[in-house]
Amino acid sequence: MSAQLPPSLPTRRGHGGEFALIEWIRQRVGSHPRLEVGIGDDAAVVTWPDPEDVLVAVDMLVEGVHFDFGQATPEQVGHKALAVNLSDIAAMAGRPVAAVVSVALPRGASPDLGRRLHEGLVGLADENDTALAGGDTTATDGPLVISVTVIGTPLSGGPALRSGARTGDRLLVTGCLGCSRDRHHLEFTPRLAEAAALLASGGLHAMIDVSDGLAADLHHVLAESGVGARLNAGEIPLREQGEHSRDGRTRLAHAISDGEDFELLAAVDPRIAAGLLAKTPFDTPLTDIGTIVAGNSAELVMPNGRVVPLPPLGYEHRLD
Amino acid sequence: MSAQLPPSLPTRRGHGGEFALIEWIRQRVGSHPRLEVGIGDDAAVVTWPDPEDVLVAVDMLVEGVHFDFGQATPEQVGHKALAVNLSDIAAMAGRPVAAVVSVALPRGASPDLGRRLHEGLVGLADENDTALAGGDTTATDGPLVISVTVIGTPLSGGPALRSGARTGDRLLVTGCLGCSRDRHHLEFTPRLAEAAALLASGGLHAMIDVSDGLAADLHHVLAESGVGARLNAGEIPLREQGEHSRDGRTRLAHAISDGEDFELLAAVDPRIAAGLLAKTPFDTPLTDIGTIVAGNSAELVMPNGRVVPLPPLGYEHRLD
Repeated sequence: MSAQLPPSLPTRRGHGGEFALIEWIRQRVGSHPRLEVGIGDDAAVVTWPDPEDVLVAVDMLVEGVHFDFGQATPEQVGHKALAVNLSDIAAMAGRPVAAVVSVALPRGASPDLGRRLHEGLVGLADENDTALAGGDTTATDGPLVISVTVIGTPLSGGPALRSGARTGDRLLVTGCLGCSRDRHHLEFTPRLAEAAALLASGGLHAMIDVSDGLAADLHHVLAESGVGARLNAGEIPLREQGEHSRDGRTRLAHAISDGEDFELLAAVDPRIAAGLLAKTPFDTPLTDIGTIVAGNSAELVMPNGRVVPLPPLGYEHRLD
Repeated sequence: MSAQLPPSLPTRRGHGGEFALIEWIRQRVGSHPRLEVGIGDDAAVVTWPDPEDVLVAVDMLVEGVHFDFGQATPEQVGHKALAVNLSDIAAMAGRPVAAVVSVALPRGASPDLGRRLHEGLVGLADENDTALAGGDTTATDGPLVISVTVIGTPLSGGPALRSGARTGDRLLVTGCLGCSRDRHHLEFTPRLAEAAALLASGGLHAMIDVSDGLAADLHHVLAESGVGARLNAGEIPLREQGEHSRDGRTRLAHAISDGEDFELLAAVDPRIAAGLLAKTPFDTPLTDIGTIVAGNSAELVMPNGRVVPLPPLGYEHRLD
């Protein structure tokens, strides 16, 4: 990236120690063809691609709640802070355009911390053609807090809402569920390309990203769409067999109730779904895990044929 | 506002205790004609007014750094968190369209805290026709942190940048400087209407909001525009005479170095400025405090005729 940067500082209600960080961020971020005005004025000016809607997603990560520096590097935290928002834009079948970042850095933290955090952000932003348009950096007497807001546009034919699922739709899921343990939730790739391909199939009726767990997020779709669902437990793509759960819960329980998989769950017209499964237009695995039915509840067909209800949350104890 | 709300919950990587708060916020915020999809999907969908640029501003407030609940009510903190962003949009001569809010609430805080914070946000959003489009609520083991992102559009003829000041421009300022003490910084009205009127005058060349202090913010404009400035100390609109500073600093020192006034500082064509001063198109006071000159530094003409340099920061000790 070139570096035609205006010479002044952005929002300065922060504290002296952060000015060097802000200057570093400006140099590191550089310019972007879609940023008429980036870091260095009262607000960013983003050239908007076309006269269309604006998608807005925001997520806040708090040290000690969403991550710990004992288990995550600052780069991973920066990556995750942006990735969770890109996952939300993917779930709308959207395209990210720009992001802004606000960070509260613990007083006395290493000066490297802010820089390393932004390295993670910049890397993922570059991979996804997302302009880092500005931000706010401040100090805190508490744990590190980072909030990222992404604005984007719906792709042609979008956005994909939670509310469009219809009886008979197949429920397709990308990747693996219950796989958020270890480092996946810190290093995952937002499913933007997969979402675009699902939308382009012409049969996408509803979509969500699996951030709260399959059961919880499925119920968001059901509630919004006014339908029910029947899942086949044996079809749910689980963590690999050889990897044992440390807490004794089954891989199915993890798949159903763990959050932070950040895979896509899509309700797709059954004929189109068959085509997508026969010739999946991307490398990420795509699996048919069930169907949309009438009603307003969800049930799970176990491999032995037993049918059990699948409530929105906290189902793990009944499956173990 | 009506309440055509979708029935599901927004981003749920928060914690059980916050679900009631989120539901309360959804009911309280209601719908907005510009929100195709508000709280309750993976991202908000905002109908964009016209094919034009998008302005983005973000600010984060941290308890113990930017406010203390000993001196500020939760409603005031919510108001301020949005108002500082609206002030940034005003400084661009923009119009706010939508806002998203992320909040980290201290564990064990009163359930009322989140609601009262949002009451302050909602009130100011309504006054400024700004749609609250979504957000993220989480817990923290540290102090309360709130981050607000506002997206908007430049008004016709805008945006007003920091970079357009020209030699000979008059420097105009709204309201009073050094008045951020007491409750002003918690209760101020963003100068959106005043900014629109200054832009409509046809002579607005550059603008900034005074958030870091007159000296610091003036230097942002000078650096971006490649010019210098000469201010008349006797013309700067100060706090009222009868109100004594508790810290012994002069009112002029406060006016020059205090942050958080959130008034507008504008560089305006001299003829247009004369017209604006003769017949100010709004009720807020508008004062001519100096002129843009060649060079890259600022100086202050004291009432006794002495000329002193005005560096960007920390000038108070030399004026007292």
